[in-house]
Amino acid sequence: MGRRKSRFLRKPVEPFVVEPGLTADAVLERMERVSFQGRNLGTARRIWERMLGSECTIFLGAAGALSAGGMRLLIAHLIEKRYIDCLVSTGANLYHDLHETRGRRHFIGSPTLDDAALAAERIDRVYDTLASEDEFCKNDEWIAAFALKLERRPYTTREFLNRLGQQLWDDTGHRGILTAAYRANVPIFCPAIADSSIGMGLSQARHRDRTAGVIDVIGDIIESANVVIRKPLTATIVLGGGTPKNFINQASVQAEFFDDRVGGHKYAIQIVTDVPHFGGASGSSLEEAQSWGKLSIESEKVSVHADVTIALPMILSALETLCPELAKRRKRPEFDPSGRVMVMNGQPLADNHFQEP
Amino acid sequence: MGRRKSRFLRKPVEPFVVEPGLTADAVLERMERVSFQGRNLGTARRIWERMLGSECTIFLGAAGALSAGGMRLLIAHLIEKRYIDCLVSTGANLYHDLHETRGRRHFIGSPTLDDAALAAERIDRVYDTLASEDEFCKNDEWIAAFALKLERRPYTTREFLNRLGQQLWDDTGHRGILTAAYRANVPIFCPAIADSSIGMGLSQARHRDRTAGVIDVIGDIIESANVVIRKPLTATIVLGGGTPKNFINQASVQAEFFDDRVGGHKYAIQIVTDVPHFGGASGSSLEEAQSWGKLSIESEKVSVHADVTIALPMILSALETLCPELAKRRKRPEFDPSGRVMVMNGQPLADNHFQEP
Amino acid sequence: MGRRKSRFLRKPVEPFVVEPGLTADAVLERMERVSFQGRNLGTARRIWERMLGSECTIFLGAAGALSAGGMRLLIAHLIEKRYIDCLVSTGANLYHDLHETRGRRHFIGSPTLDDAALAAERIDRVYDTLASEDEFCKNDEWIAAFALKLERRPYTTREFLNRLGQQLWDDTGHRGILTAAYRANVPIFCPAIADSSIGMGLSQARHRDRTAGVIDVIGDIIESANVVIRKPLTATIVLGGGTPKNFINQASVQAEFFDDRVGGHKYAIQIVTDVPHFGGASGSSLEEAQSWGKLSIESEKVSVHADVTIALPMILSALETLCPELAKRRKRPEFDPSGRVMVMNGQPLADNHFQEP
Amino acid sequence: MGRRKSRFLRKPVEPFVVEPGLTADAVLERMERVSFQGRNLGTARRIWERMLGSECTIFLGAAGALSAGGMRLLIAHLIEKRYIDCLVSTGANLYHDLHETRGRRHFIGSPTLDDAALAAERIDRVYDTLASEDEFCKNDEWIAAFALKLERRPYTTREFLNRLGQQLWDDTGHRGILTAAYRANVPIFCPAIADSSIGMGLSQARHRDRTAGVIDVIGDIIESANVVIRKPLTATIVLGGGTPKNFINQASVQAEFFDDRVGGHKYAIQIVTDVPHFGGASGSSLEEAQSWGKLSIESEKVSVHADVTIALPMILSALETLCPELAKRRKRPEFDPSGRVMVMNGQPLADNHFQEP
Repeated sequence: MGRRKSRFLRKPVEPFVVEPGLTADAVLERMERVSFQGRNLGTARRIWERMLGSECTIFLGAAGALSAGGMRLLIAHLIEKRYIDCLVSTGANLYHDLHETRGRRHFIGSPTLDDAALAAERIDRVYDTLASEDEFCKNDEWIAAFALKLERRPYTTREFLNRLGQQLWDDTGHRGILTAAYRANVPIFCPAIADSSIGMGLSQARHRDRTAGVIDVIGDIIESANVVIRKPLTATIVLGGGTPKNFINQASVQAEFFDDRVGGHKYAIQIVTDVPHFGGASGSSLEEAQSWGKLSIESEKVSVHADVTIALPMILSALETLCPELAKRRKRPEFDPSGRVMVMNGQPLADNHFQEP
Repeated sequence: MGRRKSRFLRKPVEPFVVEPGLTADAVLERMERVSFQGRNLGTARRIWERMLGSECTIFLGAAGALSAGGMRLLIAHLIEKRYIDCLVSTGANLYHDLHETRGRRHFIGSPTLDDAALAAERIDRVYDTLASEDEFCKNDEWIAAFALKLERRPYTTREFLNRLGQQLWDDTGHRGILTAAYRANVPIFCPAIADSSIGMGLSQARHRDRTAGVIDVIGDIIESANVVIRKPLTATIVLGGGTPKNFINQASVQAEFFDDRVGGHKYAIQIVTDVPHFGGASGSSLEEAQSWGKLSIESEKVSVHADVTIALPMILSALETLCPELAKRRKRPEFDPSGRVMVMNGQPLADNHFQEP
Repeated sequence: MGRRKSRFLRKPVEPFVVEPGLTADAVLERMERVSFQGRNLGTARRIWERMLGSECTIFLGAAGALSAGGMRLLIAHLIEKRYIDCLVSTGANLYHDLHETRGRRHFIGSPTLDDAALAAERIDRVYDTLASEDEFCKNDEWIAAFALKLERRPYTTREFLNRLGQQLWDDTGHRGILTAAYRANVPIFCPAIADSSIGMGLSQARHRDRTAGVIDVIGDIIESANVVIRKPLTATIVLGGGTPKNFINQASVQAEFFDDRVGGHKYAIQIVTDVPHFGGASGSSLEEAQSWGKLSIESEKVSVHADVTIALPMILSALETLCPELAKRRKRPEFDPSGRVMVMNGQPLADNHFQEP
Repeated sequence: MGRRKSRFLRKPVEPFVVEPGLTADAVLERMERVSFQGRNLGTARRIWERMLGSECTIFLGAAGALSAGGMRLLIAHLIEKRYIDCLVSTGANLYHDLHETRGRRHFIGSPTLDDAALAAERIDRVYDTLASEDEFCKNDEWIAAFALKLERRPYTTREFLNRLGQQLWDDTGHRGILTAAYRANVPIFCPAIADSSIGMGLSQARHRDRTAGVIDVIGDIIESANVVIRKPLTATIVLGGGTPKNFINQASVQAEFFDDRVGGHKYAIQIVTDVPHFGGASGSSLEEAQSWGKLSIESEKVSVHADVTIALPMILSALETLCPELAKRRKRPEFDPSGRVMVMNGQPLADNHFQEP
């Protein structure tokens, strides 16, 4: 038998056995013993549970059209129940979240619709999903109007987005990513805010008042690194790659310049559809990240090659069944992201210098 | 509001809401209202249910390392509970099924293992999954020995594989794809049998007896088309693409030459990871298939871009919860695939001429 | 400086410098010093040259819609100038070659055409390429008529396709894959012939005469392994993956059972767009192939992740500039693939038993 | 014949015919008549030529590890010879360009290297390419030192990067992206500068002087839209997707709010490896962009699914052979990107309000 022959042949694949009424967590548990991306998806659930059981700070990166695609209340849930501690997002995900929090909707369409016909009706398409451009314009104006209420000074995206969440909550009382983060005191960073409709809204504020709409993205770099320096046990969960993936890794690399205790994230999950062999960052492997010190050599890690709209509902359904108590009880960092200077675990966290350990 | 403005903006995306204890079917039901591949996965479950509720003949195509990867008992289940009526498979999936039905295992490995070390220990790797080459050699011998017991005449793969399933069942009494198909009278076609270890086993039978191991793959083409001619209401479910995908479509196209009632499959699900834009058949769109008449223009259809090891456990867990009765009660074709001439619904089905309607 | 610090940092990337009039070989030479798939494409050209400079037998596997997509005269050229020695192809590539050799054409279309409109005009679409279904039907009849002229006995695909090439040449005098292989005495294997329109043509011959259209795909397995046993220094070039990829590897694995000198292919190039992480054979890595003994541990090898319609014209343009003499002079195997029993280097090559070395 | 039968079957695929000595432009010309991505690559070359022959402003977006991967002198060449007018880049591409312009190198590695060993030697891996982390740290310091020399006021990335290019040129006299853009007066925007090592360098300047490193990314949004308002005939060429792809489209969408003459880019080429069906922006189709008005409904456009390290050397080699005169003579916009306020065609271009037409 193979088992005797080789150290490599120890743990057999267990063929998936189906039963009526299987819950998502049971499905994922069985998937862990099959192969390929099913195994990785099951493993992702387990590593996330390990994160929750440690005392690490959990970063979540969100890229791709997750909010337009129906994932925004899952991310809100992750924030509210503190399955994560800090969100790094593309602007688009926050913008499409704001759109729905403000009571607008995205609509079910198809990738084969006639785009000239859509353009004629001022409907914007995101693959198989549609939205009204006129409603988008009103969002932009809403953002511009909000930005004009702020002080005329630079805001990190973290501070700006906290205020934006507050305003949204005050206006609507609706759940969403921005409002959940505001209410749960979870900081959001948006390193590429200039490449989004939130940036466009800010530029329209500037258009109306030439001193408005000043965003300090360099301050975000410092703050995010200081989050790691303050508590070097960290985890990264990446949905879709993009700028959030790199920004979370950069925080660790930058922190390490100033603090030898930092040695890369200790846990890593990435759910991506891009591939490594074209050299881009979105598809880069977690092993590659270890060469840079972005991840610890000893990190527990898994890449899941799957669409987030399949993987995230599965994983979160399982987590919500298996470990809500763990999420509630865990020793997590506490933030106050509402001020010009963020507070972490009761201490201010500079945005203008790296803190020595 | 968007709803009034445009016919395109009718049905909103419903953000996925998580709860503890969600079953797979509930997860898929919610996924149907999100976007991208989550929506498609949910839709696939629904279309499969529609197939079960119609009187169609359901073909399942199985390509990719599904058996090595832990999917074989799901496919066996689909056969036993008659969620499908006819299997078209790569040889590899049947071979790795036989391997486990004979009591051997595949093992959990990793894509980053040292292949030279594996080769030195005679361990074969399939991405993150391992198996013993020596055990494979014994399978080959077992297949050769079995083939030598057969009559010295051509066998379609359908007949050969039915006999192989019978022998496996007699020897082992174990569930698997081949044994389930034998017991449930579900025919299996394997158009690329020469490109597999089952073919290698047959070639070793030929080596021992120069008149052994004669396979009639052209007869398979005729039989599969006759299955469609006998009952032109058909459905196709494709896992992974490959030769099974085209063979199932070819059956419909070939049938149409002889029977005007045939107008392409009426339902189609494909779960693939390949993409259309390089022109290969595995990734080709279901729309493209309509130009050929492989699918009816009116067919209900969905492509799910996901790994089968994620998608199939999810869909089948949902089906097993929602519609076991539907599967049991449905008007399905009845086969006797054990003889030289297959019988369908009580009538013989030629392997040497296309049957006029 | 990095050079002194580490053994890893020896050979710098040379940024590509553009000039007017660069020939394909010059472009590929410069690409070898960049990164990612450009480097791999350049390396593929070099390894192919190494194959030509050795005395190996070069297998070419051709999958994907290469003939419909305008690659058929490149493959014919590879055969005529003996850049390769033995072709393993999908049926579709041979069928679409036959279509054009018979004077029909494929046409420039678009992936966004209306497939219902195409179906109404009996036009078949392959991504962005179109063809007339009525012309395809006439091909099928032509193949059936040809098959009816053959003896009523089993033919390996190798023998059948050689005869088919001869008939095509006699009828048309046109260059193409089948006619070039016939004229250059290059054997073609088609392990999945039952999954193609050539198989459909054969089935129509059977329909007219129930003793016609008998194909012996198991004989192909033995012949292809015997090609390796006869001369164990072999190379594999795979375009697109699919059944040809595995069949070429299988020939080496099967040969090794009977001949210890065989230790896997010594050179390997694959040009694929599929990826490894879903476990399928088309995308599997060349390293994985080493664990199976399909490739030698010491093999020179490269995977190029690129569409064949880009990569093959580039590589062949470079080879044709740099090494036509090398191709002409090289010590290559000589085949006579026209008989029931193939002849290699003057000796018959059995199709009913593996030859001891 | 097909030609008479259908309006769809007009223009046949021309099989690629190889000859010795083919130049890149001849290869691409022949590729235009084949299928799939070969056709698209050939078409991209032609559309680029059309851009050069019109009076449009050509934006180039550069994402992916292009500079590390050996593409930086091609991009420099595009700038110097004005095949493009305005660059939008990720920070990484500018950073790795700076690394080499400063005399450091990237090195040829392999994706299967041991990342723990690399980490131990402080070597960073980008798929198959390596670099020294210590050298990277010195770059960061160099950037920080440079930033400390600047005035204590906000800089758009456009102004900052122009100054950075100037400093680099003064220090080194070496060609590269940043130095070429400085010398050719081509503006560079970097919307996600905070997600890059250039951002890290800026943050280190801030660490040393708390008033340093202030970047105004909102100003970039306004400037880039004003470039479009000033001259609404525009073209986009996207390498790899990412933030540059969206930023270029956003410039057109934002401009249209203020100027009805703007109707989306008139020409579009994208060379991407990502796919549309997961909903992310990098892989989104050019048709989808039309629904948003990012591209004109009448735009000439092509997506090439290929690695930039293959596609760009090919296209640029062809352009450099066929149309250097066209590039030289064309009516192009003239920028002075060196000041706090950019000048375009002799007129200042505001960064704090959108200009009415």
